[in-house]
Amino acid sequence: MKVVVFGMGLIGGSVAKDLKIRNFATEIIGVGRTDATNQKVLDLKLVDRILPRDEAIEIADLIVLTVPVNALIDELLFVLDSIKSHQVVTDMGSTKGAIVDAVQNHKNRSRYVASHPMAGTENSGPTAAINNLFDHKVCIICDKEKSDSDAVELVEKMYEALKMNLKYMDAHQHDIHAAYVSHISHISSFVLAATVLEKEKDESAILEMAGGGFESTVRLAKSSPEMWTPIFIQNKTNILEVLDTYIEKMYSFRNYINKGKYDELNQFMKDANQIKKILK
Amino acid sequence: MKVVVFGMGLIGGSVAKDLKIRNFATEIIGVGRTDATNQKVLDLKLVDRILPRDEAIEIADLIVLTVPVNALIDELLFVLDSIKSHQVVTDMGSTKGAIVDAVQNHKNRSRYVASHPMAGTENSGPTAAINNLFDHKVCIICDKEKSDSDAVELVEKMYEALKMNLKYMDAHQHDIHAAYVSHISHISSFVLAATVLEKEKDESAILEMAGGGFESTVRLAKSSPEMWTPIFIQNKTNILEVLDTYIEKMYSFRNYINKGKYDELNQFMKDANQIKKILK
Repeated sequence: MKVVVFGMGLIGGSVAKDLKIRNFATEIIGVGRTDATNQKVLDLKLVDRILPRDEAIEIADLIVLTVPVNALIDELLFVLDSIKSHQVVTDMGSTKGAIVDAVQNHKNRSRYVASHPMAGTENSGPTAAINNLFDHKVCIICDKEKSDSDAVELVEKMYEALKMNLKYMDAHQHDIHAAYVSHISHISSFVLAATVLEKEKDESAILEMAGGGFESTVRLAKSSPEMWTPIFIQNKTNILEVLDTYIEKMYSFRNYINKGKYDELNQFMKDANQIKKILK
Repeated sequence: MKVVVFGMGLIGGSVAKDLKIRNFATEIIGVGRTDATNQKVLDLKLVDRILPRDEAIEIADLIVLTVPVNALIDELLFVLDSIKSHQVVTDMGSTKGAIVDAVQNHKNRSRYVASHPMAGTENSGPTAAINNLFDHKVCIICDKEKSDSDAVELVEKMYEALKMNLKYMDAHQHDIHAAYVSHISHISSFVLAATVLEKEKDESAILEMAGGGFESTVRLAKSSPEMWTPIFIQNKTNILEVLDTYIEKMYSFRNYINKGKYDELNQFMKDANQIKKILK
């Protein structure tokens, strides 16, 4: 099985590592954006070789796109234009609606399987690639009925090699759920980091106080702007909806503190505590 | 060394466990709020015995107050009214300014050492008490010059037995730093939980999406409302200041997404990424 991975960052690099070591891929071919990245990928031995994208597609059994979601549509269209009927392509983008819409009428649409492995760290780039990144995490496959069954099976097998738990969803539903749970978490964390950096000028105080919950809450603010800017813009409608609820609730919280409304503040937090019933 | 612990929750229970097992205390006496708590504390063997507070104070070498900050001032005044000149009292409250102000003219002020161990979990109550909770975390001792040197030394020894790294700060400075780093983190997490619970009605979607960063960002929203309501109200002035910066930045972020301002959004996150330089 020859696997071609487009994008050689945290996700692409980690996919390459595990698919090779777990014998899913006999050969891993990388397609990176720049010569510098490609050289680093070779130095790190993340792939067997680097090829230009057209040569890589030519020999691939499975093509995995791990580029940021703004570049994804163009890359996917290029791949779909080039592949033959036995080849399969999947992507790992964090948004799905715009991508499936962009290829819905393509003659090779059925060779594409839309997917989103919910895994990552706050680090980015090829040096951030690690083994076992995907193990026991959730992967969402979208609109599987629009893909050929052999294509879905191959992609499922790949995710099984990555030890992921597979779930199935409509692509646009995926984007709503992603906005309401994951994307709003990233935004609250980016805003937290920006706020603390502006208000707390004493870096040693940040370090001393970090154990009081800041460190874990701000972790996502270390995430890559190159990855997240296009996600926020592509999933704008769903994100604005949840963001406005967040801002409204933040105002209530502020008001309760400002007016010394002990009972309302206490009740707000008791309601928030209900998250314990879902996440043990 | 007879140690009396007021408050038998996560903090008080964990202090009792480690001070006994590490031979700092020859006897641990607990003072709980309710008979039900006291019975649970005895069942869990967190303390050697439970006593009413006046009897407990009578025989104590060191008194440790771990009650919520709204109850702390009254308890501290009661203890200071009762103790003799060889006895020492410290507290573990998350706010310090209001507490040191309330006792500043007390005749036994110098037997009190204000402190804040920066440790905890999202769980609460005596069943949440665990060993090694404080190990290698930061503890802040405030206004040490207002305490007798033998009292400071005893409290330092206790925190050394808990393996904490000691830092020293002015009490009001402590409250500013705590608001700017720790308290705002808790608020952003409580508001995140409340938002997701309101918007995302599909619990299975929350679980499936939780791996995408939600789980760690929302962890603090599991914290005890009984502990946090009085902290937010007592530290209101500092908290409102950092909260208004947070809301302002959240509006900018919303505006950048809404207007599709790619570069500004990207730059906002790049600036937020600077937190990596402080927290590796």
